[in-house]
Amino acid sequence: MSPKLSDQTKEQRVLQILEAAKRVFADKGYGAVSLKDIIEETGMSRGWIYLYYQSKDEIFEDLLNYQDEQYERELAERLEQCASVWELVYELQFQQLQELLVSHKGDLMPAFYEYFLLGYRNEERQELLRQRYEKGIARFAAILQAGVDRGQFSPIMSVIDISRIVASFQEGIITHAITVGIETANTKIQLESFIDYVKSLLRPITS
Amino acid sequence: MSPKLSDQTKEQRVLQILEAAKRVFADKGYGAVSLKDIIEETGMSRGWIYLYYQSKDEIFEDLLNYQDEQYERELAERLEQCASVWELVYELQFQQLQELLVSHKGDLMPAFYEYFLLGYRNEERQELLRQRYEKGIARFAAILQAGVDRGQFSPIMSVIDISRIVASFQEGIITHAITVGIETANTKIQLESFIDYVKSLLRPITS
Repeated sequence: MSPKLSDQTKEQRVLQILEAAKRVFADKGYGAVSLKDIIEETGMSRGWIYLYYQSKDEIFEDLLNYQDEQYERELAERLEQCASVWELVYELQFQQLQELLVSHKGDLMPAFYEYFLLGYRNEERQELLRQRYEKGIARFAAILQAGVDRGQFSPIMSVIDISRIVASFQEGIITHAITVGIETANTKIQLESFIDYVKSLLRPITS
Repeated sequence: MSPKLSDQTKEQRVLQILEAAKRVFADKGYGAVSLKDIIEETGMSRGWIYLYYQSKDEIFEDLLNYQDEQYERELAERLEQCASVWELVYELQFQQLQELLVSHKGDLMPAFYEYFLLGYRNEERQELLRQRYEKGIARFAAILQAGVDRGQFSPIMSVIDISRIVASFQEGIITHAITVGIETANTKIQLESFIDYVKSLLRPITS
């Protein structure tokens, strides 16, 4: 008979697994990781892990969802507390990029690219990527819409299209910064122009 | 004794190999391709190929260089012939993206991403990617500079930075178009905004 676990204990255990998996994926990318690597990193027994997950795919997808949920909670809080939505937008874009530039060690970006770009012939992964894209676009558009609702933005096009444009531009800046380095890409100038451009799309109303 | 080959015959043979390799890489990506696949596609004997190439890496890099040279020649010609450099810039950005969107079958993009993004722990590939980046940025900046020299552009910053910014934005739009599809990404609107933005950086002088 296996011991009865409270929901809290279960949740804690899942979190432990996800945190361990994150370290492994950040360290090795995606393809090079085996379920065994993750199990070893958790320090738990094989049996415990199999209670929750059957494959590294499942763990990786759950890890992405977990990070999204954390991020969404943080965003909702910051949106509620901020006086100026433009400042929040600025911080989100600029700080996010800057953090990435200082160091992209310990983060999931490379594993993420491996998982999805190499899965471009895999329909399930493509569908998952599409869903993640739409969720991310809607999430940022909701912030922009809050700016409109509070009378702080006067955007030149729909907030959902602005969200898509911002996502593309940001994607490109990050990709180039990571692949050729921030000096070669002159990422600082790119960021400044990017912010100016986003401003020209949103037209924040300065009182 | 092997037959003596004229330089022309050699060049022709190399071209045949590169064309065959392109079909294979476009079809299968990078990782899944073996040197054997390429040899089979050429229809030549193993021995012939080894006269020119020792590995698929060599073939792939040569293929990229060959495509670059073709593109550079085409660009130089178009620049010389065009009356309006802005129209050339517009065509280059817009048409290039549109072609990609209509169909990215038969092109090397996925193999290219695999080769470089998965080589992000490989210093030689990183250096190669950096060199390719700088060459591409300089190539487009030279076109922009031609527009300045002809008195057709009045850019708000250095043409080299504009070239970097354009490259990032374009990279992001293409990445999202390919990964989630042009409807989901609303790529049409993104392209229109992108062109407007590039215009605001270059400020073409309309006479």
